[in-house]
Amino acid sequence: MPRWNDLSASEITLLDHVFWSSSISREALATGSSFSKSRANAAVAGMLEQGVLEPTGEQVATGGRRAGTLRLSRGLGVLLGVALGATGLEVGVLAPDLELLAHHSEPADVRDGPAIVLSRVRALMRELLKQCGAKPRDVIAIGIGVPGPVDFESGQLVNPPLMPEWDAYSIRDDLRADFSAPVFVDNDVNVMALGELWRMQRGLQNFLVIKVGTGIGCGIVCHGQVYRGANGSAGDVGHICVDPAGPRCHCGNLGCVEVMAAGPAIAREATAAALAGQSALLKQMLTERGVLKLQDVAQASRAGDVAANAIVQRAGALIGQMLASVVNFYNPSHVFIGGGIQRIGPLFLAAVRQSVYHRSLALSTRHLEIQYTPLGERAGLIGAAVLAMQESLKLVEGAK
Amino acid sequence: MPRWNDLSASEITLLDHVFWSSSISREALATGSSFSKSRANAAVAGMLEQGVLEPTGEQVATGGRRAGTLRLSRGLGVLLGVALGATGLEVGVLAPDLELLAHHSEPADVRDGPAIVLSRVRALMRELLKQCGAKPRDVIAIGIGVPGPVDFESGQLVNPPLMPEWDAYSIRDDLRADFSAPVFVDNDVNVMALGELWRMQRGLQNFLVIKVGTGIGCGIVCHGQVYRGANGSAGDVGHICVDPAGPRCHCGNLGCVEVMAAGPAIAREATAAALAGQSALLKQMLTERGVLKLQDVAQASRAGDVAANAIVQRAGALIGQMLASVVNFYNPSHVFIGGGIQRIGPLFLAAVRQSVYHRSLALSTRHLEIQYTPLGERAGLIGAAVLAMQESLKLVEGAK
Repeated sequence: MPRWNDLSASEITLLDHVFWSSSISREALATGSSFSKSRANAAVAGMLEQGVLEPTGEQVATGGRRAGTLRLSRGLGVLLGVALGATGLEVGVLAPDLELLAHHSEPADVRDGPAIVLSRVRALMRELLKQCGAKPRDVIAIGIGVPGPVDFESGQLVNPPLMPEWDAYSIRDDLRADFSAPVFVDNDVNVMALGELWRMQRGLQNFLVIKVGTGIGCGIVCHGQVYRGANGSAGDVGHICVDPAGPRCHCGNLGCVEVMAAGPAIAREATAAALAGQSALLKQMLTERGVLKLQDVAQASRAGDVAANAIVQRAGALIGQMLASVVNFYNPSHVFIGGGIQRIGPLFLAAVRQSVYHRSLALSTRHLEIQYTPLGERAGLIGAAVLAMQESLKLVEGAK
Repeated sequence: MPRWNDLSASEITLLDHVFWSSSISREALATGSSFSKSRANAAVAGMLEQGVLEPTGEQVATGGRRAGTLRLSRGLGVLLGVALGATGLEVGVLAPDLELLAHHSEPADVRDGPAIVLSRVRALMRELLKQCGAKPRDVIAIGIGVPGPVDFESGQLVNPPLMPEWDAYSIRDDLRADFSAPVFVDNDVNVMALGELWRMQRGLQNFLVIKVGTGIGCGIVCHGQVYRGANGSAGDVGHICVDPAGPRCHCGNLGCVEVMAAGPAIAREATAAALAGQSALLKQMLTERGVLKLQDVAQASRAGDVAANAIVQRAGALIGQMLASVVNFYNPSHVFIGGGIQRIGPLFLAAVRQSVYHRSLALSTRHLEIQYTPLGERAGLIGAAVLAMQESLKLVEGAK
């Protein structure tokens, strides 16, 4: 199996360039790198020979010479990505060019604590690797996104409000019980932001990803890099106040956007509407399913239910109000919204946009685009694999 | 006169290092640069000979060898810095190591338009240069901070609310009428942030500077660089809503922090308190001076006037409320507050702190420091000179 530990610093730079381009033509690689064309070509030839790079299927003949696109070789091994949410988990095996080879998602409750949740994650990892015909030693690195604030250096959660049992637990040591590969941990929405950064091949430099699910969080990309803040808690927008007279949040303050507009608030209002007889559809769902969840409200809204639509619009307006402050401060080029809320569809997005454009300054919103995360439900898994690959490459670079 | 255009790329890198260190020992320069010690020493010797660097006064003998600190040579020329506010302007001549050689400040009204204001700026520049015995051709570069959103590439203001006549006016062309040096324009609080970044020798990577004067703005330092946003309007925090039922702002929205807590709001409330007979001191000031300004309220507050203190505390609480949102989002290590508000003293700062610590998450504020800008009233002028020097060095680097 080819190992990149033997590569030179300039070869690693080229490797990084190929990774962030997903696949790239030899021409573009040679001209896009900071090396001379002949030096880049020689390095590429060497890396092809060592099996670190490989040609993709597409070969186009141009003017007699065989041009070809390159990608990271499948022979390098696989990446493991984990997207842990408050109420579900997803594990995936990905090729070095981030093709998803196998994945599985299922409900999970992070409040069961790290021992239970992570042993299930490890079992799924082994199972999925087997499905792909890969072995634990083939794993290049593991990336995991978690729904709480992370100290990035130690890879540990710090006072996570949704998962107190995980405070200062070493996810790294836990996963290393089965795998010798390096483990990288980050906040779930930072990981989604990293995934979108990769998808756009770093084409956007300053954008935000907002995740709305059980909580509300924000991933920040600044000057083309994920920005984590002085203590790793940057993007903690769920506790921005949108109504000083609003209900009390678990953080102790009144009127946080999270307590008023995240998944549980939407489900709670839908339950109240069902019980108050404001919606036959929500009432029927409640009777059939026992409880209403965000996805039920999304389904009712898409079906045109008036009460569900009012709840969705109110949540969108409140989240837009929070976003207006953030947009005035940060002036991003794009805001991508992801998480469970994405299932609602265009109505929620329209309410958010209206609220932001109403409250933000003209200059901040002149070219602002607000849309759902293009990677959709895969943003977390892809992002976790990008984290794994990016940080592994940094480790190798650092050792040069 | 020595010219750095002739320097090599690695010499420029060393020059940049010396500039950001203010002054630096030869030892520290050789070890702090990415070059080998012998290569760095040779380059330094050459730059001393060319008169680009010079030893500072302090020479310390250590172990028989003469150690010495270095700075950018006075022979390189001078920098011109301009800090333009809504109601005043300041012009300074600075040495390449940012020692202030001459400066002058006076009231000015930006609403008089660029032609009038900038002709006064040019007159002051000529006068101050003469005072220093310098000539227009000695000017290395000019930096200017202006109280509105700037398109950094073109150096032009874009829809500035406080100075509409300046929209798309070319400050560069205007100042170039008298000086052939390059002119760099940025928003006033970005310039202050750059000044503080230089003062700390880039020791802090992620911090904010809030300016409270006629308006309220924020300079953002991210990953050790000033962050200007997708359209140059990042940090426009004055229009973050702190009270949905508050008064209407000139931007059209209700309850913006600027309309409720900036200098004019504080002066307006003080006038009302004086007229309502709530403060003998404010009434006396109003009678004597005809109008009350922020500095009058500051003076009354420092004298212990109860009505002035209540006004100051309310403004601090509102600005703190806005800052709490910003701190939750950005998780800076430090927030520095500058502008006219700085004259009020500790009472205002205490109100801001209380409000931020009350509303922000524990993790965001665990190590957060909130203080007045250490450069104080010089932040704008120093920052403008840093802008001039930094961008000039980039021009030279770009030409290599």
